[in-house]
Amino acid sequence: MTKVFREIKASSECRARLGEVKTAHGTFPTPIFMPVGTQATVKAVSPRDLDQAGAKIILGNTYHLFLRPGHDLIRELGGLHRFMAWDGPILTDSGGFQIFSLNELATISEEGAAFKSHIDGSKFFLSPESAIGVQEALGSDIMMALDTCIPYPADYDTAAKATALTGRWAARCRKAHANRDLLLFGIVQGGMFPDLRKMAAEELVDIGFDGYAIGGVSVGEPVEEMREMTRVSAGLLPRDHPVYLMGVGTPEDLVESVFMGVDMFDCVMPTRNARNGMLFTDSGRIVIKNSRFRDDPRPVDENCDCYCCRNFSRAYLRHLYVSREILASHLNTVHNLRYYLRLMEDIRAAISEDRFAGFRKEFYRRREQRPPG
Amino acid sequence: MTKVFREIKASSECRARLGEVKTAHGTFPTPIFMPVGTQATVKAVSPRDLDQAGAKIILGNTYHLFLRPGHDLIRELGGLHRFMAWDGPILTDSGGFQIFSLNELATISEEGAAFKSHIDGSKFFLSPESAIGVQEALGSDIMMALDTCIPYPADYDTAAKATALTGRWAARCRKAHANRDLLLFGIVQGGMFPDLRKMAAEELVDIGFDGYAIGGVSVGEPVEEMREMTRVSAGLLPRDHPVYLMGVGTPEDLVESVFMGVDMFDCVMPTRNARNGMLFTDSGRIVIKNSRFRDDPRPVDENCDCYCCRNFSRAYLRHLYVSREILASHLNTVHNLRYYLRLMEDIRAAISEDRFAGFRKEFYRRREQRPPG
Repeated sequence: MTKVFREIKASSECRARLGEVKTAHGTFPTPIFMPVGTQATVKAVSPRDLDQAGAKIILGNTYHLFLRPGHDLIRELGGLHRFMAWDGPILTDSGGFQIFSLNELATISEEGAAFKSHIDGSKFFLSPESAIGVQEALGSDIMMALDTCIPYPADYDTAAKATALTGRWAARCRKAHANRDLLLFGIVQGGMFPDLRKMAAEELVDIGFDGYAIGGVSVGEPVEEMREMTRVSAGLLPRDHPVYLMGVGTPEDLVESVFMGVDMFDCVMPTRNARNGMLFTDSGRIVIKNSRFRDDPRPVDENCDCYCCRNFSRAYLRHLYVSREILASHLNTVHNLRYYLRLMEDIRAAISEDRFAGFRKEFYRRREQRPPG
Repeated sequence: MTKVFREIKASSECRARLGEVKTAHGTFPTPIFMPVGTQATVKAVSPRDLDQAGAKIILGNTYHLFLRPGHDLIRELGGLHRFMAWDGPILTDSGGFQIFSLNELATISEEGAAFKSHIDGSKFFLSPESAIGVQEALGSDIMMALDTCIPYPADYDTAAKATALTGRWAARCRKAHANRDLLLFGIVQGGMFPDLRKMAAEELVDIGFDGYAIGGVSVGEPVEEMREMTRVSAGLLPRDHPVYLMGVGTPEDLVESVFMGVDMFDCVMPTRNARNGMLFTDSGRIVIKNSRFRDDPRPVDENCDCYCCRNFSRAYLRHLYVSREILASHLNTVHNLRYYLRLMEDIRAAISEDRFAGFRKEFYRRREQRPPG
């Protein structure tokens, strides 16, 4: 196995580290945030907007693309990169999470997951092998092994069984992994049980993956529990591979998880919240439809260098939002993505200069919060 | 009155001509198409997209901005240009058309138009004087006189009365026109009656405006009647002023109207149709959701240089459209606007090289149509 991760600088104060991951579509720096492009588009923005916002890698959802337009069609048209005109690296999830979150009636067997399309109800089946096949057809740079999701709360036996099945599926994914130019990450499950997390991590490391993801967090548990499972899982994973925390989270979650040693993140929060008019700033969040912004000539965030903040006032953005203009979703997304990506740039600079602890303190001071713990 | 229009080259074959119009926010070439920015945004695109598509002037709707967010707020925030971050010229309509088209119960008196907001039903009144006041508050470069709309069909008496009232309102607008840096155009009404059109044109020219618009067409009449009223009206207007055909139209309408001597156009067709998945090409229109585009790797129009055509396939655009992605509206709008603006660039080049008749012939040949008349 080629080494895909290089640690460039480790913090002397915590587990935060600067690194880079090499893929078939280029190398990206870590810690990194990946905008989510569910249906072959990061909602409301184009690839050039992503590029201008500073995105280095994006995420695609296997489940959605499998159903529509179909991975065979995307392969026929030259793969996902060409299809959506994104030249940089793409990570695809395995589809596991969506099968469970969008399908109340999904049925899991040793063989795989049977589920119905959320679009038209038609029946589908995804096995560990076909999950890899679909992701290879898409031409993903980083594929994820198919995992099972553990609901929250779950008792120990339920969590243990699901974690064991995820382990067996992970081994089958690794075996099915034919195109070794495409990287494959395993996913640590284990619910909210540290010993299951430990078993899962050891099993995955035994199989051997290009990187390791922490799954099954941000599924409804309190934030303290999420942070604790992240800390536990990140602590179990080998430091010569990238660690990816799936589906997380708030700006605070990113800062805390980097502190714990996480290298990669994805979350719909910046894009989804943008469409709902919730904007991130260095001093906290604002809800743009609020009437106090009616005549506010200031940009969303005076520290922000995005197209939206360089050109438009809060008053204008509020007008667009209350007028239900498409441009509201677009400009809000441009800003929120830039906020997340700039936060990661600042985090990388802080680690590079070995002042991450000070950065973290300042991050909370600006938003008039106290650091957790 | 300063001369705002300069004719650069007249066609030797027809009334088509190349010109330019000077405004407080710069000079634009004619014949020109103005994208419509109803609510202080051209729907689904940003000012930088407009600039890249080749837009030189855009239109704002006084009626909509008057109601939301209000002209006083826009003035307070530095005017419409700064509010929407568009540095080029802006033409604003008078609100007359929307009052009639969005308000079944609008009541017209000598004094002005009383109407109810289409947003919340609250009552408003617009007079010729306040229509100018609102447009001055917006900081429009080209203001339109308040006119009355004549329904189609209308009998001669109805049309004559409305046309006479428009004339009296035009005189009041001219008198109220305080800031002479902002240009003011009069609107020729007259319904489908050539003698009323003639009276209206003469009356407006007597008053004296910076430019003249042809209103009251494209209100439901057959295309032949629309073309005839355009021809009649354009023929009545002085050649040392710009002639603006309001709310028209299809690519064919633009070519035919330039032929008749029209200099300026606006229409929601490229933007609205884009959002409905109808795209313009040199060989005709396509409906992108059509299943024949499912696996079509070609761009919308191989002759087009827009961001959409340089990067995305019809198959991808179909996928976005059927998946109801916001990016569908955005990319389709980018393309359709570029199509319209490129058509106008081609028209200007043809007039400049005195080959407009040949251009027109080729325009119809490509779409396998015959020129009208």
